[in-house]
Amino acid sequence: MRQVAILGIGQTVVGEHWDRSLREIGGQAALAALQDAGLDHVQALYVGNMLSPLVSGQNQLGAFFGDWIGIWHKEAVKLEAACGSGAAAFRAALMAVASGDVDTALALGVEKMTDKAGHDVTAALATAADADYEVEQGVSFVGLNALIMQRYMHEYGWKHGDFAAFSINAHANAVHNPFARLREKITLERFEKSAMIATPINLLDASPIGDGAAAAVLVPADKVKSAPGKPRILVSASAAMTDTMAVHSRKDPLFLTAAHDSARRCYEMAGVTPDEIDVFELHDAFSIMSALSLEACGFAERGQGVRLGLEDAITIHGRIPICTRGGLKARGHPVGATGMYQIVEVAQQLRGEAGRTQVQGAAVGMTQNIGGSGASILTHILTTK
Amino acid sequence: MRQVAILGIGQTVVGEHWDRSLREIGGQAALAALQDAGLDHVQALYVGNMLSPLVSGQNQLGAFFGDWIGIWHKEAVKLEAACGSGAAAFRAALMAVASGDVDTALALGVEKMTDKAGHDVTAALATAADADYEVEQGVSFVGLNALIMQRYMHEYGWKHGDFAAFSINAHANAVHNPFARLREKITLERFEKSAMIATPINLLDASPIGDGAAAAVLVPADKVKSAPGKPRILVSASAAMTDTMAVHSRKDPLFLTAAHDSARRCYEMAGVTPDEIDVFELHDAFSIMSALSLEACGFAERGQGVRLGLEDAITIHGRIPICTRGGLKARGHPVGATGMYQIVEVAQQLRGEAGRTQVQGAAVGMTQNIGGSGASILTHILTTK
Repeated sequence: MRQVAILGIGQTVVGEHWDRSLREIGGQAALAALQDAGLDHVQALYVGNMLSPLVSGQNQLGAFFGDWIGIWHKEAVKLEAACGSGAAAFRAALMAVASGDVDTALALGVEKMTDKAGHDVTAALATAADADYEVEQGVSFVGLNALIMQRYMHEYGWKHGDFAAFSINAHANAVHNPFARLREKITLERFEKSAMIATPINLLDASPIGDGAAAAVLVPADKVKSAPGKPRILVSASAAMTDTMAVHSRKDPLFLTAAHDSARRCYEMAGVTPDEIDVFELHDAFSIMSALSLEACGFAERGQGVRLGLEDAITIHGRIPICTRGGLKARGHPVGATGMYQIVEVAQQLRGEAGRTQVQGAAVGMTQNIGGSGASILTHILTTK
Repeated sequence: MRQVAILGIGQTVVGEHWDRSLREIGGQAALAALQDAGLDHVQALYVGNMLSPLVSGQNQLGAFFGDWIGIWHKEAVKLEAACGSGAAAFRAALMAVASGDVDTALALGVEKMTDKAGHDVTAALATAADADYEVEQGVSFVGLNALIMQRYMHEYGWKHGDFAAFSINAHANAVHNPFARLREKITLERFEKSAMIATPINLLDASPIGDGAAAAVLVPADKVKSAPGKPRILVSASAAMTDTMAVHSRKDPLFLTAAHDSARRCYEMAGVTPDEIDVFELHDAFSIMSALSLEACGFAERGQGVRLGLEDAITIHGRIPICTRGGLKARGHPVGATGMYQIVEVAQQLRGEAGRTQVQGAAVGMTQNIGGSGASILTHILTTK
């Protein structure tokens, strides 16, 4: 298959956009990406979204956004993999260009979660879990993650405060990201005093939802030249893997098998090792997920992901910078859009456009987007080579 | 890209399956397709579904069905394009194999519409239309199609009874399809006496919804050999096109531009003309859509699609047999599954497995799956060559 490059990126501020609809938010990010790419149209559009049928009463987002941004009589379709929907759209666009089917594709992740026409958002989010065997028991997503975190602390002997570094790092970086939802630093003291949501997860372990959209334009790599100050961003690896829907079906609820397998496949495809990853935008929906992702992807031994936070290895100056633009925790988690924010943010890092949170010399970046409690995981590696 | 063949097909009876869940219906079709293919696993799974978030409270159907049929640690994702979701899943599976990314892919279309946990089904179906500019005005899908049919009758001078042949043909064929929902013949008299739903659409102009699932296994064509009585089924063409979401945005509401463009592209890819199509499974959600599809795809002049019914050209012995297994009208319309039923039915025809409704010597078949009121249209051509 052909090598593919990212020609343009775009995003909206994550937040409660009471004044803007699903259509307007997604359109803004899509048009920003097209403008950044210097194009006025593409041959195919792939939309990642989880909640619009439930929250906005709207399906068929492929044609919906094609219509809104003026791309008619093209291929346009929606992909859904719960909170992994954004990366699923990116992967579909990647495959369309890599296979030679089209020469230009737009991947758009979009979610409108406030000003809902329909469902309660917590109930809508629960549709990512197993309706018959998890949700029916009354468990919510924060509840599932709380059970995992409790078990992790029990098995490996960590205290709740040991997880604080993940949230502190994310908030510190979000201060410098104009597209982030929570642009304020937090302290260890504030973390520890924060309200308990579902023991042991407190408010500052959990990422905030929000409205948001992020997009990227993909083209064959040979159509793009590196320009001074704007290196060519190559998509060097892509892998999607699933696990059981229900956490209780897994042999080991503390190991993200689909994260491990998809990362392993990406390392092979890109020809890199974990040591060579300069920046890693992981799926920190809850602080426990940061630890589990770092372990599954080979950055820490089992049960030792938390230590990377305590040793400052995850900051922009550390060994494996994560959440460099705020992560889900502080940039915000507009669920079906999150995977595309991760792509856009790593592209910013590789272009050297990350401002005060720039990882110096970043040339190899990884994203990992998780749907459900680890049931759908998509990993990508971007490089400037 | 590589040539791709259909190695296995499977389907469930369309109906009100009060005793079987979303999981069980989809799993039955998927496992039937795997069994027909002689495989016990695939490398990737693509699920087409429209309503499960609303009706079953379930998202993330890729991982969900992967888990249920025992395909873990593989790629699995859901595609949604309203009632075009089934063909969207088929096209994604096709691209995955054609591009060389995987050697085996399963496409599954599935819809559970009865025994709903959540929304009213008519309201859920309306999410395929434009929520802000169509649904907000109170229009339903039957309402939109009624406006189109009324305009068509006004423009071209047809009477309501002139459309009866479409429904009579579909019902006559469904009698012989054990997977069809309405296995009973209807007469012109019964058609004309049928209850009016939304003038001029009466009950027998409209397709019945239902629970159902259909699936196909795709592999590289060079891995398949034709066997006596079981010819190799090649996917010779695939195209997806969009139009405006809202019917009122179109220059001409009586012409399905995306049907025309996708069919035209498929004819070019497959190197065939409309005259060479032996069987055409079109999207007869309402009888007016049969006429519009036949016209857009080159089988009739503008305004003359109805004439094909009146002249018996659409029966299994006619010039362009349609709805040979009952169509949406009588096989039933489990919305997100319908596109996969069309694929399975054309494959049956090309294999010579269509029993009493076999089109003699069928070697080239076409499917056309429509999402919304023509906003997302996917066309495929299958051949035995």
